[in-house]
Amino acid sequence: MLLSEMNKEQLAEFKADCEKKYAEAKAKNLKLDMSRGKPGADQLELSMPMLDILREGADFKSENGMDVRNYGVLSGIPEAKKLFAEMLGVKPEEVIVGGSSSLTLMFDAVQRAWNFGVPGGEKPWCKCDKVKFLCPVPGYDRHFSVTETFGIELVNVPMTKTGPDMDMVEKLVSEDESIKGIWCVPMYSNPDGITYSDETVKRFANLSPKAKDFRIFWDNAYCVHHLTDKPDTLLNLMDELKKTGKENMVYMFASTSKITFPGAGVAVMAASEENIQATLKILNFQAISYDKVNMLRHVRFFKNLDGINAHMEKHKKLLAPKFAAVLDTLDREVGDMGILDWVKPNGGYFISVNTLPGCAKRVVELCKEAGVVLTGAGATYPYKKDPEDRNIRIAPSYPPIEELQMAIDLFCLCVKLASAEKLLSE
Amino acid sequence: MLLSEMNKEQLAEFKADCEKKYAEAKAKNLKLDMSRGKPGADQLELSMPMLDILREGADFKSENGMDVRNYGVLSGIPEAKKLFAEMLGVKPEEVIVGGSSSLTLMFDAVQRAWNFGVPGGEKPWCKCDKVKFLCPVPGYDRHFSVTETFGIELVNVPMTKTGPDMDMVEKLVSEDESIKGIWCVPMYSNPDGITYSDETVKRFANLSPKAKDFRIFWDNAYCVHHLTDKPDTLLNLMDELKKTGKENMVYMFASTSKITFPGAGVAVMAASEENIQATLKILNFQAISYDKVNMLRHVRFFKNLDGINAHMEKHKKLLAPKFAAVLDTLDREVGDMGILDWVKPNGGYFISVNTLPGCAKRVVELCKEAGVVLTGAGATYPYKKDPEDRNIRIAPSYPPIEELQMAIDLFCLCVKLASAEKLLSE
Repeated sequence: MLLSEMNKEQLAEFKADCEKKYAEAKAKNLKLDMSRGKPGADQLELSMPMLDILREGADFKSENGMDVRNYGVLSGIPEAKKLFAEMLGVKPEEVIVGGSSSLTLMFDAVQRAWNFGVPGGEKPWCKCDKVKFLCPVPGYDRHFSVTETFGIELVNVPMTKTGPDMDMVEKLVSEDESIKGIWCVPMYSNPDGITYSDETVKRFANLSPKAKDFRIFWDNAYCVHHLTDKPDTLLNLMDELKKTGKENMVYMFASTSKITFPGAGVAVMAASEENIQATLKILNFQAISYDKVNMLRHVRFFKNLDGINAHMEKHKKLLAPKFAAVLDTLDREVGDMGILDWVKPNGGYFISVNTLPGCAKRVVELCKEAGVVLTGAGATYPYKKDPEDRNIRIAPSYPPIEELQMAIDLFCLCVKLASAEKLLSE
Repeated sequence: MLLSEMNKEQLAEFKADCEKKYAEAKAKNLKLDMSRGKPGADQLELSMPMLDILREGADFKSENGMDVRNYGVLSGIPEAKKLFAEMLGVKPEEVIVGGSSSLTLMFDAVQRAWNFGVPGGEKPWCKCDKVKFLCPVPGYDRHFSVTETFGIELVNVPMTKTGPDMDMVEKLVSEDESIKGIWCVPMYSNPDGITYSDETVKRFANLSPKAKDFRIFWDNAYCVHHLTDKPDTLLNLMDELKKTGKENMVYMFASTSKITFPGAGVAVMAASEENIQATLKILNFQAISYDKVNMLRHVRFFKNLDGINAHMEKHKKLLAPKFAAVLDTLDREVGDMGILDWVKPNGGYFISVNTLPGCAKRVVELCKEAGVVLTGAGATYPYKKDPEDRNIRIAPSYPPIEELQMAIDLFCLCVKLASAEKLLSE
């Protein structure tokens, strides 16, 4: 029954029942965590054979003849550039294989634009009176933080089922020269799990920003992270940009953090050759070379994109049941109450839910008091301000499935309780 | 015989003889490299057992219980902080174990100061009208480049046998508020191989810079890289700074690039707890965590500082004969001619030589034409401008010893030829 159709007595009774169950749950002293997109322990085991590849007696020569254990090759070894070019659908010359963190590559890309400027721009961003970034919401908190750190003003753009509201994006970038970039997670977006439609990608490729140094930060973090047998597909933005002659407009990012080991994987940046050369010109003062032993380890383990995809099938087998547990429980517990909506993702690491307006913070608080940690309400919005206080990001990957089930049961209970409180207070 | 005491005829004859030998050498089509401080292939083999440590079945838990294969712990795992704190003579709380490159840690430290400021400062360095850095010369080209990239003005300070000219350092920093830092390689300096004397370190600890946000960039790159049985010793700057209450004045750096694998080692930054906390506040937006698998691999391999020192003994056995070959050849070939001087280093990676004024570029050019690549003349000075054109950095580590011998023989011949050319032209 829809909670909105209950009368005061029914609501009060419903709330009392929730409170009773909540007290019981609290007494269990749970200590569960659904807050971050961390792979589970079983997922980490999948990549253990990779650590056996480069050992005493192994060949440490890259295909260009260089010993990967020594200094050199700032942009990464050729075979690693090839592998990740294949993964991102670009050319090897359009790739820098960096350290282990794509977040660092993104921070550094903003930092370089800030201090030194980018091709097409007249001056470094720091010399501009005002710099703004478009932030599709809900989105990834760490993206927003990077730009906030530099004092860049963050402008919300609503997400739709096909990607960011492109009418708004087109209008804003064509009118406002201070808008220098946009944060995108184009496939299985964080947190919504939405993949940008072909039309959205084409509209990105056809953007005509007033700022000549505008950049799309295309964080393809979940490009091979499918959860179903009918995965989403994403149109190749670089191909589309080459058709419009605007290939300098994108910086692409990805990493193997959720393919092999978080923090000990390999991160990549892809961009036009002009962008890559401009990047290397500054990067050359920041590093001599990145960890090529780890690059070679990854390449020897995966061999090619087929190898990555086969490996991701194993992740899928471990992750899909966790997502199913969450989605089934949401359906069963609150599916017919009109107090929560969500999108079933075909990949990625999150399930994004929307409560009744003004209930998200309360739900997170209730969960926390009963021992279940969620990503903070508001975290999916710039400045942590969710204007309607509705969005919560659920990360099902880390807890073992029994714990996850307890956590999501409690979550549903908290949604019911918070919703009843809210409706009774109106 | 001193070349300066030869008459014109003797000099012309000497030069003709050198030219004949040079033509013969050129005909050999050598292809040798003494340009960069790269470990030799035999040195890389020393650390191979480290790659066998973390494999299937190994324990991947850090001593704080965290799985090093997953996200988390921005400042590094506790056991790695302990190990490198021991190496640098600081407390574990004063350490960040970063990625694999200390150059990146230094670049990022300058970048953070530039954009966000440091404790003690009133504003970010980029907001100051003028920012200058002191550069002991000759010094490390990549240090100078980092600051040059940000448009910081580089000010030469001559090196003495006990470290930078401290009279000049004290005078400049106490008078000029725009001087925000100094680059130091305090032990086995690059390129001179000089270790700062106790008095120099104490004078650093007692500096009273006019800029309240002045920082000593203390790159202790060669702190365990001894070449003799009577190694130099370096007074602990952090201890001295704590006595004067000025411990915020230093950023220390080191890495295992020349202990395990260049580019695939572990880099560290050490500083006062206040500096570390301020650093982490910004770093938190740039990274989630660094490669903890590689950190644990290093700690399990070395166990403690004794383990590092024992490992460095093996490097010494491979490197000392190469340094001896160069020094013996210099002595034998040009020792009594008054055309070259140098300091015999007790550690580090370089031998720094000074030619007659105005001869360094010519020597490097002659070497190059005959197939021996040296570090560019001038590279050891800011803006690549050696005012007297005298200094050349010789890096004996990379070539196998037979090649090294050929290279240094040719080098000596080129020094003789260039010197004769010079003296004849006067």
